[in-house]
Amino acid sequence: MEIWSDVVCPWCYIGKRRFEKALADFPHADRVEVVWRSFQLDPSAPDRPVETVAEHLGRKYGGGPEAGRSMIERTSALAAQEGMSWRQAESLRVGTLDAHRLLHAAGELRGELKEALLHAYFAEAQNVADHETLTRIATSVGLDEVQVKDVLTSDRYADEVEADVRQAAAYGATGVPFFVFDQRFGVSGAQPVATFRQVLDRAWAAREPGIEVLGGDSADDQACGPDGCPI
Amino acid sequence: MEIWSDVVCPWCYIGKRRFEKALADFPHADRVEVVWRSFQLDPSAPDRPVETVAEHLGRKYGGGPEAGRSMIERTSALAAQEGMSWRQAESLRVGTLDAHRLLHAAGELRGELKEALLHAYFAEAQNVADHETLTRIATSVGLDEVQVKDVLTSDRYADEVEADVRQAAAYGATGVPFFVFDQRFGVSGAQPVATFRQVLDRAWAAREPGIEVLGGDSADDQACGPDGCPI
Repeated sequence: MEIWSDVVCPWCYIGKRRFEKALADFPHADRVEVVWRSFQLDPSAPDRPVETVAEHLGRKYGGGPEAGRSMIERTSALAAQEGMSWRQAESLRVGTLDAHRLLHAAGELRGELKEALLHAYFAEAQNVADHETLTRIATSVGLDEVQVKDVLTSDRYADEVEADVRQAAAYGATGVPFFVFDQRFGVSGAQPVATFRQVLDRAWAAREPGIEVLGGDSADDQACGPDGCPI
Repeated sequence: MEIWSDVVCPWCYIGKRRFEKALADFPHADRVEVVWRSFQLDPSAPDRPVETVAEHLGRKYGGGPEAGRSMIERTSALAAQEGMSWRQAESLRVGTLDAHRLLHAAGELRGELKEALLHAYFAEAQNVADHETLTRIATSVGLDEVQVKDVLTSDRYADEVEADVRQAAAYGATGVPFFVFDQRFGVSGAQPVATFRQVLDRAWAAREPGIEVLGGDSADDQACGPDGCPI
């Protein structure tokens, strides 16, 4: 399954915890592969921060930083119900393209890096657009420092990020988190744990039992197997 | 789509060319994503070569190196029809786990590395188990030398290789190349170009038009979108 999310998206982090709780109780959890996909919620956000999220919200929806902080407080209360600490009121509004490029570079460590970036942003109010901060976070989960710097000083993996964003649009997703099971069932938003469990059950029941083999007669196949490569 | 293959598998390389020809003429080629999967045809092959492929074939099927060379010559003739040069008679029998681990480490460069490894083995009779040779091939397509050495001196990505092999077995594949479209249609062996085209057409026609969205009422979703993160 695939999960589209952004590093600075509060519902993505809360939804991640709820989904993880559902998955922990799912009897076939060891057969579920999670692939994290990129989504840029606010592509116009600057790489060098000029304001906090609270200031930005207050400016966008009116009421000033105080109103912004009060919106964040309501999210914090829900995050606390999931056992998460939340310092988003201090978080800076920043772009996430570089963070997403690193996620694509992370290979087998993508899941660990995703969690570390969300934790850094929401629980520690770190600047996840700053290259030194990104390098520290990425190496803390095991990425190679030289490779991280190569990615950050280039535009590598930008195409992969864009392809993810395009795929989300093709699925009709306008927001995140967005969960897709077997390229077949979608779930939008930080749904309750019970809803995620229902969808896991449904997707499991509906999974394809196997594949249909097409093409020539297998006796004539030009293939290599345990007995060699017949011609 | 996914293609299972091994670096030392002649039908895999010939099948790759035939599939590429079919794909080049396929009108929706830009919508087809190819993911290379690992398969170890001969896991007991040594990392330090002790014989050529011709010697191994002659020992396994009888007739000595001469018989082995004559088997390879017949494959060479078919490879020549695809415009490929073929020096497999000089190739060494070696294990491919390290080559596959590097392929998993290659990220966006996996396709380029796959072609480079097959070319090195079949067209240039290079030892694709030797770490210096692997480093040279991997860096020639753009991988970072430090990262390559880190992978080769560790056992990183061995789990990913094993997961690929297990998935092939779950699909019922006993040999390679093995092509799977949309986790739904399979093709075994180096089929003719026309067969690959038929399967591409069939898989395209049968592709899912979209996904079914499950879960709560979208008005109540806790999701972030272009208009913010409503609570």
